[in-house]
This record gives sequence, structure tokens and C-alpha cells, in this order.
Amino acid sequence: MSSRVFPKEMEGTITFTRGVPPPEAFPIEDIGKCFDAAISNDPDVVLQYGHQQGYLPLRRELASEYGVSESEVLVGNGSLQLQDLLAACLVRPGDVVLTEQPSYDRALTTFRRRGARVKGIPVEDDGISIERLEEALEREVPAFLYLVPDFQNPTGVTLSTEKRRRVVELAEERGFWVVEDIPYRKLRYRGEDVPLLREVSAARVVTLSSFSKLLSPGIRVGFAIAPSALIVALSALGTETYLSPVLPTQAAVAEYLRRGLLEPNVERLKSLYTPRWQAMLDAVRRELPGARAFVPDGGFFVSVFLPGDANTENLAGRAQQRGLVLTPGPSFFAESDDEEAPGERFVRLPFCAVTPGQIEEGVKRLASLL
Amino acid sequence: MSSRVFPKEMEGTITFTRGVPPPEAFPIEDIGKCFDAAISNDPDVVLQYGHQQGYLPLRRELASEYGVSESEVLVGNGSLQLQDLLAACLVRPGDVVLTEQPSYDRALTTFRRRGARVKGIPVEDDGISIERLEEALEREVPAFLYLVPDFQNPTGVTLSTEKRRRVVELAEERGFWVVEDIPYRKLRYRGEDVPLLREVSAARVVTLSSFSKLLSPGIRVGFAIAPSALIVALSALGTETYLSPVLPTQAAVAEYLRRGLLEPNVERLKSLYTPRWQAMLDAVRRELPGARAFVPDGGFFVSVFLPGDANTENLAGRAQQRGLVLTPGPSFFAESDDEEAPGERFVRLPFCAVTPGQIEEGVKRLASLL
Repeated sequence: MSSRVFPKEMEGTITFTRGVPPPEAFPIEDIGKCFDAAISNDPDVVLQYGHQQGYLPLRRELASEYGVSESEVLVGNGSLQLQDLLAACLVRPGDVVLTEQPSYDRALTTFRRRGARVKGIPVEDDGISIERLEEALEREVPAFLYLVPDFQNPTGVTLSTEKRRRVVELAEERGFWVVEDIPYRKLRYRGEDVPLLREVSAARVVTLSSFSKLLSPGIRVGFAIAPSALIVALSALGTETYLSPVLPTQAAVAEYLRRGLLEPNVERLKSLYTPRWQAMLDAVRRELPGARAFVPDGGFFVSVFLPGDANTENLAGRAQQRGLVLTPGPSFFAESDDEEAPGERFVRLPFCAVTPGQIEEGVKRLASLL
Repeated sequence: MSSRVFPKEMEGTITFTRGVPPPEAFPIEDIGKCFDAAISNDPDVVLQYGHQQGYLPLRRELASEYGVSESEVLVGNGSLQLQDLLAACLVRPGDVVLTEQPSYDRALTTFRRRGARVKGIPVEDDGISIERLEEALEREVPAFLYLVPDFQNPTGVTLSTEKRRRVVELAEERGFWVVEDIPYRKLRYRGEDVPLLREVSAARVVTLSSFSKLLSPGIRVGFAIAPSALIVALSALGTETYLSPVLPTQAAVAEYLRRGLLEPNVERLKSLYTPRWQAMLDAVRRELPGARAFVPDGGFFVSVFLPGDANTENLAGRAQQRGLVLTPGPSFFAESDDEEAPGERFVRLPFCAVTPGQIEEGVKRLASLL
């Protein structure tokens, strides 16, 4: 028998890749009970075709939360599916779509696959650069601007209230849609909520969100809130694509909300994630002093641009050899007007599915590669 | 109090439109128990992202049933979603897709939306016309040929073994895919099974099916079986489109299969549907003697071409006024080389979600419109 000289965290591979909740995040027993209730209480609806726009009781819960009518709510099989429908409805071949730079990698892929030229506008500590956005709008009006305004994926930054006002104003002046994707919004570990873009002015805003980060990703319940004419178009394409959404999962979520279980679960998640967030902030400050770090107030991600003189070539590949799994930075970067390719120096550090010990060790390994 | 002079079936609207199972078809209690077991037994998987190709235990069940490996099975959110992915993967702009004429209306729409020119090959009493198929292949090779070989939607006919052999032979000679969509196959009310096209030779065959007609449509569990290289491509596009499929529903189906509940449920459904099938056959013979009827051995549909001299103009609209809801015939018809537009005279008569009394009364109302 060999004696163990290292603490457990120093062994094995550490994964800083996808924004996936840890298994201990799932309220298994309550979800099970809600499935049970959903199927016993409304079998003729949840087991049948129909409710193409999403399970009506869930649409009503969401309409009430967001202060809109049911006709402005679409619930589908996860929010990526809704991003795909949205891009299919709004993008004409050759259209430009603007995103934050960096942005959610799967959104970039989806918009490109639907024919968009995706252009990235740099993110600053308080969100997308308004100056650079205005410059881009001088050149052409996009089909839409895609933003993750709260605890952005991948950087972690939050768009300031002042910038939200200007974004919405520009959208209304120039006539483009703003898609605000807010899956992390309720996971705030410090400070106060900033108004939603739709709260500033909803006319040109599509709000996307999901229960993946608050309840369970496997149930794939995502939703869109938008003016009803756009919801009608999205829903019609959804019906053509998948006929009806999966209903038992939506009904289980409706039951979970009806029972008032979401808010206590979010509080539980915040208690679980806050020490991990703190550990990641501390580790980045301590181990990567030369990096430009984005410091989030919530969500799933801290991120850094590594120092310009660091040897980041093939960083993800070299990290793997040291037992550290990273997503290659360029995945999060769209085409931009910058000559520099800062994606090479960009690292997203998801902290929710790793323990404080793993976080410390993982960031140490990252520092050792520079 | 008015006395009731009409039997109940003669009142109210009768719906002969979509192929939807009646609520009494759903094994509610067993499905509820299977959801329960699925969530308690494997929560870290079914509530999480992952299993992009479908819930592994369900893929294993299906692989075993169809005599293939897991790598040849993809389970997604309903089979229409898989048809959409398939069309996106196989159709290049301008490609032709061949279908039976008439065919499943939503499939036609999906293939067209993905850029195909859809051409219909007439259906005969033993399935697609081989002569007309060969003529069409002389002109161009399609991306794929889409067939519903068992109890076809909408006609109800079954493709003969001899024709299946020839179709597969042509596909292999000319190098196109044959998509066999078999959601109704297990609902046979008389006679013996005909071999699957994949049983004749699987190299160019994609088999699509689902649990919508055997268990529940609302769960949206559909699957594709195909050579693994094609499954990899479909699954990659699925991951880009919806990230992961909805897993709790797939896990509930896996549990339902594991418990051996599917076969008894299919027997129960056959007992429920056989008298309705018989009632529809009788009513069509009695009330529509001048029509060309397709006589099915199973499934959901009887169908007729009304007599050529019948006044079928605006048939669906006139039927509605008589309390009879029909799907307009042309929905099921693709472009074809025939000058005639037989869609105007075509009526699909789904019998599973209506009682024998409603069937008799509905067919009488139809006859009265001619």
C-alpha cells in the first residue's frame, strides 16, 4: 500500500470546460414528485400532441413573472433550440449578427449555420463596448445583436444599466432585435440586480432563458419572451421542426414553480456556488497576477486574458498533458475588426462544478503553463 | 327539457384529421411509474446535459431489437425532428427527394423547407409504383426516397415484399438513401408482417420510428437507425441544434421497455383500434361505394379517392359546415408528373381517435357532400 502524500484535489484531471452544473445541484426528489404530479394531474395533455407554443400552465407562470401575456411566451426543448429557430426566422443569407466578443461558442455556431456573418464587438468590464457597437452600426444594421447581459458567457461581466439603455435605444432607432440571453441571471452572489433590457423597453427585445442552470439541464426546458408576432413565427417554425415540444418535462417545471420550489432552490444553489466563485476569484488573483481578469458578481464563469508575453500556443493541448481540461479560447471569438487574435490568450474558468480545492489546484496548473 | 331524438354520435363535430391517438390509449399509471424509476435510478445522467445520441440504455434496447450496434441508433425529440436533421444532412440545394404520392404532409413540408424539390411517385394497392419510380430515377437520382412502408400515411397501404426488394436494389444500384418511416408498423390488425426494408438489405436504409403511436406522443421520443457514419453526422447536427435531447422522457421509455410493458400495451391498443378499423372499412364500403378505397391491414388510416364526377370543390370547407373536419387532400400531394390533381379528390380517414358510432356518422356526412 502506498501512503497518500497529496490531498485528493491534486490528483486526477481537473475540468474547466463547459458551464455544467454539478450533480449535487439537482433537487432530485422534488423533481421526481413534480413529474409524478404532472403526469397524474394532466395526462390527456402532457402525454398528447399539442401545446405547440409550450405547456400552457408553464407559459402562464412565465408570463406572470415577466409581466407579459401568454402570447408573448414560447417554451421549447432548451434555449439553444430556440436560438436556432430565432436565427432561422430572423437571418436572411448574408445578414450580419453582432455578438459580444468573446461570446457563447454554441450561439456563434448556430448563427453561422443559419447563414449569418457573425461579428464580435469587444466586451469591457461593464459589458459590450458601446463605442465599437456604434461604429459597427454605422457600417450595417444587423439582423440582431446577441447579448448575455448578466454574468456573461464566457467572460462573467454584467452589462451596466447605462449601457443597457443605450443598446435598447440604438435597437429602436436602427431597427434591429436585441436578444438578451439570461440563463445565469438569478445566480447573483453579490450586489443588486440590474434591470433587464426588456424592462428598459421591450419593443425590440427577445429574452431567452432556461431552467438548465436553476433546476436541470437534462429536462431541456428553455423559453423565449418576445412580441407576439415574433413568437407566432418562431412557434410556427418550431411546429414544422418538432411538431410539439416535449411536454412532461415542461409540466414538471410548471408544477415545481407552482409549488414555490424554485426560489428556495436558487438560494441553495447560491450557497453551493458562492464559495466556489470566491475560490476562483482568489486563485486567479494569487496565481495569475499578470492576467487581465474579468471579475463577475454571479453566474458560472470567471475568465482571463493571459499576459501578452505568455506562451499560450497550444495552451489547451499542453494543459491536457498536465491534467487540466480547457476549452480553446478561439471558440468564443467571432470575426472582428481587430487585427489581434486575443482568443489565443483567452481562458474561460467555470467554477460551479469544481470544488474549491480543485479550483486552487487547477488555476495553479494553468499558471505553471505560462 | 328537450327529449334526445338523435344518438350521441350524431351530435357535435366529428374530426377526421390528424393521426392522433385517443386519450384512452395512454398507459398513464405505468408511464408515471417509469418516470419515477428513471429519475430515482439515474438522476445524475437524466437530469444532466449529455447522451447527445440519446439515452444510452434506450439506444441499447433499440439496438438489440433491430439487431444493430448502439452506434447505429440515434434517439431524439420525436421523429419529425429527426426527419428535419436528416433532410438538413442529406439535401443539397436543388436536390430532389422522392416520396410516395400521397405522402405524410409534414414530411413534405420539412423536406421542402430544407431546400429539396419534392416529387411524388403514385401509390398503388401494394405500395409505391415501381414503374413510375424507375422512370423518375432515369431522370435524376434523389438525395433520398421517403417511404412509410407499413400502413402508409395517408393511404394505409403496405409495400409488398417484392417491391421492397426492388426498392432496396435500386437504392444500392443508383446510390440514394431509402428512409423507411415505420411508426404504425406494430399496429397490425390482420395478416403477417412484411420484412423491413433494412431486413432486405440495410446498407442504404435509414429506419425512422417513434413511441408516439405505441405509448405517448407528448413524450416526443423518436429514433433513427442507420449506418454509423450517417448517425454521427445526424447526431452532430442535433448537438448543434438542441445540445442534448430531453432525457427524462427517453429514460422513462427505456424503463417501460425494460419492464416488458410495450408488447402488452400494443396488444391492448390493437384491441382498442380493431373495431374502429373494422367500422371504418364497413362505413366506407357502405356509404362510398363509388370511391376508390385503400384498404389497410393496420395503422391509423383508411383513405379514399372520391369518384371523379363528385363535386369535391372546397370539400373540406363544406364538410366543416356539416360538422365534419377533414384535412384538405392536396396537403398530402407533392409535385408530380401527372397532369391531373387527384389531391382534390383525396380524403384521409383516421379511425383510431373516433368511436365506431362517430365513424359511421362521419362517413355518412362525407357521403352526403358528394
